[in-house]
Amino acid sequence: MKQSMSFIPTLREVPADAEIKSHQLLLRAGFIRQNASGVYSFLPLGKRVLQKIEAIIREEMERAGAVELLMPALQQAELWQESGRWYSYGPELMRLKDRHDRDFALGATHEEVITALVRDEIKSYKRLPLILYQIQTKFRDEKRPRFGLLRGREFVMKDAYSFHTSQESLDEVYNKMYEAYANVFRRCGLNFRAVIADSGAMGGKDTHEFMVLSDVGEDTIAYSDASDYAANIEMAPVIVTYERSDEPYEPLVKVHTPEQKSIEEVSSFLNVPKEKCIKSLLFKVDGRFVLVLVRGDHEVNEVKVKNLLEATIVELATPEETKKLMKCEVGSLGPIGVPEEVTVIADHAVKAIANGVCGANEEHYHYTGVNADRDFSVQQYADLRFIQEGDPSPDGKGTIRFARGIEVGHVFKLGTRYSETMNAMYLDENGRMQPMIMGCYGIGVSRTLAAIAEQYNDEHGLVWPVAVAPFHIHLISVNPKIDDQRQLADDLYEKLQKEGFEVLYDDRAERPGVKFADSDLIGLPVRVTVGKRASEGIVEIKIRRTGETEEVHVSQLTETLRRYLS
Amino acid sequence: MKQSMSFIPTLREVPADAEIKSHQLLLRAGFIRQNASGVYSFLPLGKRVLQKIEAIIREEMERAGAVELLMPALQQAELWQESGRWYSYGPELMRLKDRHDRDFALGATHEEVITALVRDEIKSYKRLPLILYQIQTKFRDEKRPRFGLLRGREFVMKDAYSFHTSQESLDEVYNKMYEAYANVFRRCGLNFRAVIADSGAMGGKDTHEFMVLSDVGEDTIAYSDASDYAANIEMAPVIVTYERSDEPYEPLVKVHTPEQKSIEEVSSFLNVPKEKCIKSLLFKVDGRFVLVLVRGDHEVNEVKVKNLLEATIVELATPEETKKLMKCEVGSLGPIGVPEEVTVIADHAVKAIANGVCGANEEHYHYTGVNADRDFSVQQYADLRFIQEGDPSPDGKGTIRFARGIEVGHVFKLGTRYSETMNAMYLDENGRMQPMIMGCYGIGVSRTLAAIAEQYNDEHGLVWPVAVAPFHIHLISVNPKIDDQRQLADDLYEKLQKEGFEVLYDDRAERPGVKFADSDLIGLPVRVTVGKRASEGIVEIKIRRTGETEEVHVSQLTETLRRYLS
Repeated sequence: MKQSMSFIPTLREVPADAEIKSHQLLLRAGFIRQNASGVYSFLPLGKRVLQKIEAIIREEMERAGAVELLMPALQQAELWQESGRWYSYGPELMRLKDRHDRDFALGATHEEVITALVRDEIKSYKRLPLILYQIQTKFRDEKRPRFGLLRGREFVMKDAYSFHTSQESLDEVYNKMYEAYANVFRRCGLNFRAVIADSGAMGGKDTHEFMVLSDVGEDTIAYSDASDYAANIEMAPVIVTYERSDEPYEPLVKVHTPEQKSIEEVSSFLNVPKEKCIKSLLFKVDGRFVLVLVRGDHEVNEVKVKNLLEATIVELATPEETKKLMKCEVGSLGPIGVPEEVTVIADHAVKAIANGVCGANEEHYHYTGVNADRDFSVQQYADLRFIQEGDPSPDGKGTIRFARGIEVGHVFKLGTRYSETMNAMYLDENGRMQPMIMGCYGIGVSRTLAAIAEQYNDEHGLVWPVAVAPFHIHLISVNPKIDDQRQLADDLYEKLQKEGFEVLYDDRAERPGVKFADSDLIGLPVRVTVGKRASEGIVEIKIRRTGETEEVHVSQLTETLRRYLS
Repeated sequence: MKQSMSFIPTLREVPADAEIKSHQLLLRAGFIRQNASGVYSFLPLGKRVLQKIEAIIREEMERAGAVELLMPALQQAELWQESGRWYSYGPELMRLKDRHDRDFALGATHEEVITALVRDEIKSYKRLPLILYQIQTKFRDEKRPRFGLLRGREFVMKDAYSFHTSQESLDEVYNKMYEAYANVFRRCGLNFRAVIADSGAMGGKDTHEFMVLSDVGEDTIAYSDASDYAANIEMAPVIVTYERSDEPYEPLVKVHTPEQKSIEEVSSFLNVPKEKCIKSLLFKVDGRFVLVLVRGDHEVNEVKVKNLLEATIVELATPEETKKLMKCEVGSLGPIGVPEEVTVIADHAVKAIANGVCGANEEHYHYTGVNADRDFSVQQYADLRFIQEGDPSPDGKGTIRFARGIEVGHVFKLGTRYSETMNAMYLDENGRMQPMIMGCYGIGVSRTLAAIAEQYNDEHGLVWPVAVAPFHIHLISVNPKIDDQRQLADDLYEKLQKEGFEVLYDDRAERPGVKFADSDLIGLPVRVTVGKRASEGIVEIKIRRTGETEEVHVSQLTETLRRYLS
């Protein structure tokens, strides 16, 4: 591609509203432009990277046995009403009416559409399993679009769906897709982890998120420093066992703690370490009240509370509800003297606190000398807290560290969530109707592009890995007005393309400084500069990643380029 | 692709609501499914054909110097308000509000978005010309979606836009794109014509439509039987010259014609040939009234009226307006005694009518013995009628015939319609601000797929041309339960794919009759059947187009297939 004919508008300044590197550089290097908040155009370079990523995804999907199709963005409201998500999805689902006043959703995801499609065509176990995928534009009206392509409102996604007659078949395909995802992100050059994730609002069971490690990530990952264990921090179990010290039991005493509410305040006021405090939080769990206790230096993990109680909705009780039920403010809650209708559950660590401190359910008062086995009753002890850095890894190998991650992929066992609500049934070998068992698998394609840009850059610009670079080679003629230089550059442009290299040829009448700065900004793997020694047939190669340069005779060029690009 | 793993739901019955061949067969052969009125899913086979067409388009676009990008479907209302089309596009433009109540259009076309994009980045003549294209999903809320993919509400389109500093540059690119389009449709195997078209609501000047000839087409093409001349019938000029016969002038007589209104009625009642009648139609042209006269056997072409009068809106006067102005009903209109404020224009043929008949502007009365040069005045004679079959071709070669066409492509000189309203200016060589001159170029990609299906089918199903066939070869094992057959088919599946053939392998446990019927329905170019003679290494080849069959030893298979597929 001749640069003079392409559309690569580079910027010298960092755009004011771009907070993170990938967003800044993709704008500056002319890969994308914003059309509206969270809505972007992929300019020619950006489009090429998308296509490279898509090609990798297609290869890996086909290897996993998935077949490509293309479903529409316009989705009838009736389908979403069947699944119930028309009502539960909220304002992220963009909605519109057609000229006949019929309701449509703009595809945020395609579970409903694919379930309807497959249920209408497949009636027999003989035609399962089936894995279908598409690469398609999705729409989600994010409350706060940000970070460029990382959280947009219109974006490119690969979504796949599988249909099965047995859990074993789903497990098998899930594992294949997991492998395919790992291959995709590996081939894109990403430093990522597959983390155990929460099934969240999707309503399934087993699920992994593929997280690209990055400080700008919005999710926190707990990973082992000695194994490949990684989980969304909400999902990591705590395997610490606690023992009460042999400290003798002290008497339970109610003490005056004026205006002391938080653990920090109480701990400091009473000069007691936080580890000796009991943090008490009142939750409303599917409508009933539950007091959850954790150690003062720990945090309650609501997902664990939810899973323990097999609940649907877990939310903190409001100050009004707390006041009404417990006769005190939130800061004075404690497990002693709790009304009968309140269930008390506690993290294992609470049981081991010797002579601890807790709220007295009376404003400005706390208890000291609190011992769980003597002073209050707990319906159930369980793992209820967030894992922390320094905790042992749940797989028993190494110690937990935290990292930030950008979610680029998600594999998910849906089970019969959609087939049951939408009546996607098949006849089994015994002629009985059964709901199909489903899996779904997503990759944020445009987000993956941004994640690569986030991991591959330096102070001069982007540094694309070969596999996803928009072109392999940036060919630059330093001064196209000099015949030798222009002629050699023109020749190399033809020759290298014939040899299968993808070449961006900067044939513009710009100053060399501008060309070199643009080249660094765009970040193709290798730059070939045709300059002063053109008449001798010598050009300069520069490796973008290392900055390494080398003068090469054109007779050696192909071989040298192949070496660097392989 | 193994058929057992794909999703190709074939149907034996013709779907009730599919009126035309392509729609019926694409449904029956499992290429598409309808999701909502005018909204379709492309199943795996359909998706593959789309990809084949897209690959051809990409090659031809790049050869023409166009560069690919990808713009969003969500388009800010502000852009459409700038161009004015927010108000003029009507209900075909789908609109929605985001969660912050901001208005968006769903991209029906991208003139606004691309003009905004280019105006923001390109300020100098040095960076023009520029040709950008995308292949993308478009949304148009058709009043009456029909004929499957031919007139849908969500469809795949290739749209390109060019930006220039001179008319010559636009002309040059226009011609390149015209060639590229001809190549695309030729490579897709289509029987098409590039026809001179009306610039319509787009507001440009030169324009051609690429029409696939088909009885189900919604447009009528006038083409020469002796040259490549072809035009939308609205656009074909009439080059007939007329001479008044030497019939002596008869007196003008008002005759009673009770209840005779149409040309047919009057002609029959007075026993006068239609060629002697003058058809008078009253139009409202940009608010003023114009009486248009054509010969009784001709039809008024409103586009010609519009162009002659350089008007924006031409519409028939209502019966009420006619009554008020002319004091009579529509069926009694005529050019004699017309109020001063009414302009009278006439087709050239009217001047040559000797002793004709026309309405008397009085109910139940007509004039006979009418002669234009004696009895009424005409402000302007011009070519105002539709061309007819049998007329001489406007290029002077041959005779005009009519055909029906499906519009699959459109090339269009926009001029400064968008750059002026949206302020897309550049600095010319003299430092002066100038509006960019633009062209736009569209291909209906999914419509092209349907047009191919419409031209390539027989009583058994679809008959894909090699270049766009979803696979080259349909490999069938007649009875996979027989080891020899299954083994040979499995081997051939691997072998043929390694040799670069695209193979759909029917490995299903279905009866041979079902497999053969499905195979004919799907319509891949060559079927390779592994049956009884598998143990001898002999398979049968069947050419879908001709029905020709041949037994071939596997050692000769590759060569034979290459011959048939080239």
